[in-house]
Amino acid sequence: MNETLSVLNNRMSLRRYKDKPISEEHLEQILYSTMRAPTAGNMMLYSVLVIKDKEKIKRLSSTCDNQAFIAKAPLVLIFLADMQRWTDYLHHCDIEDFCKEKEMEYNGPNNADLFLSISDTMIAAQNAVIAGESLGVGSCYIGDIMENYETHKVMFNLPDKVFPIGMLCLGYYPEKLKKTLIPRFNKEYIVFDEKYKRLSSEEFDDMFKHLNENLNPNNSFGARNIGQLMYSRKFGAPFFKEMERSVKVIMEHWNK
Amino acid sequence: MNETLSVLNNRMSLRRYKDKPISEEHLEQILYSTMRAPTAGNMMLYSVLVIKDKEKIKRLSSTCDNQAFIAKAPLVLIFLADMQRWTDYLHHCDIEDFCKEKEMEYNGPNNADLFLSISDTMIAAQNAVIAGESLGVGSCYIGDIMENYETHKVMFNLPDKVFPIGMLCLGYYPEKLKKTLIPRFNKEYIVFDEKYKRLSSEEFDDMFKHLNENLNPNNSFGARNIGQLMYSRKFGAPFFKEMERSVKVIMEHWNK
Repeated sequence: MNETLSVLNNRMSLRRYKDKPISEEHLEQILYSTMRAPTAGNMMLYSVLVIKDKEKIKRLSSTCDNQAFIAKAPLVLIFLADMQRWTDYLHHCDIEDFCKEKEMEYNGPNNADLFLSISDTMIAAQNAVIAGESLGVGSCYIGDIMENYETHKVMFNLPDKVFPIGMLCLGYYPEKLKKTLIPRFNKEYIVFDEKYKRLSSEEFDDMFKHLNENLNPNNSFGARNIGQLMYSRKFGAPFFKEMERSVKVIMEHWNK
Repeated sequence: MNETLSVLNNRMSLRRYKDKPISEEHLEQILYSTMRAPTAGNMMLYSVLVIKDKEKIKRLSSTCDNQAFIAKAPLVLIFLADMQRWTDYLHHCDIEDFCKEKEMEYNGPNNADLFLSISDTMIAAQNAVIAGESLGVGSCYIGDIMENYETHKVMFNLPDKVFPIGMLCLGYYPEKLKKTLIPRFNKEYIVFDEKYKRLSSEEFDDMFKHLNENLNPNNSFGARNIGQLMYSRKFGAPFFKEMERSVKVIMEHWNK
């Protein structure tokens, strides 16, 4: 296995960090690799916020579903899907007049830009993760940054056509950490040849067997299987309702 | 610079491939690294289609905005945002009864799952890119896979809560390729400290200076600057209208 595959395959979500700031050199290397990520039409439909302010990071630990470990991250990067910069630039380029002249309709951002921007942004974020990992800087994605849009909009001065889609907590691996890689589902249930396959009951039982075997029968949700547990903890949980609400507002602003 | 940073920083979009199939060993390594990508709650809200069938790849070259080079890719991976698997599994787990019993409301996928799934999917896709690159397998993202949803739905047997968000053409680098890395915008316009900054007219002029200097004054769009050119070639182009239409249908199916 080459060094890069080893970095990719041994990366874990790190939620405990060495009490040491990320060096400027390492931060620069992470940001450089981030910006070298592939991007649709070389347009870079994203922006990155570098957050070092301890008060802000502390506040993020509560706005992002009250996860205490976030407050201890030496560095946070917020990845913003961004069509504001292009919208402003097009305006700067007299796009309205140009379109009138060419008998084209001018429309602002729509859901196609939205999907492309999210893609661009997360591709870049993953380059940051891999670059960091190769430098001994571990990371943890925080999807909860999609919650509480209105709060984050004020905190980070976000205009309508910019929103946080991903966040990374970053810090050096602590000494004496026992690295544990969480098993993924079996490949046969995730990767398909030539066309998609919906899974049968038997396949689901096999796919989730390792998780169901370890299910605590006295779990606080009264869940009798992993589906019920995951619904209680994720898709049906209060933070997910908040995410749903927040994303709706994000989309209204984007399409304004 | 370590080996991983060198892979990240020297990757280019490859649109011409050696006439040689990807070895099974390399494909396995790429897929393994893909599945080791970080994923929200270890839920893997994506699926991957491995496309080797030459007829299918040829057809994709026309459904994805008629890009002839796609037809010559030895391998195509289609990255699907997928809430169908979890929706089916929750049903398999009697989630409806469980929710009734616990006086919870059961709702299917919404736009929060949608954003999370797209994120999960593109994070995984970028691991495939990096793994491939480290093995001498170049790649090119095709965002146009979001177009023509109805056609791809039939071609790939996609149920409602699964859709293509990204596609990769993959192939070995050809001999004697002169690698060219396209410059990105300056960091000061993409990365911000602590909070977002909208750019001024002067900043835009500086940001786009290198592109405007090379603008062909006789370009076929009659564009007088890069904003007008990019609107003509991208945001306002027919393929983008199709993407907008297609994404609208994708979202209707997802939320059904």
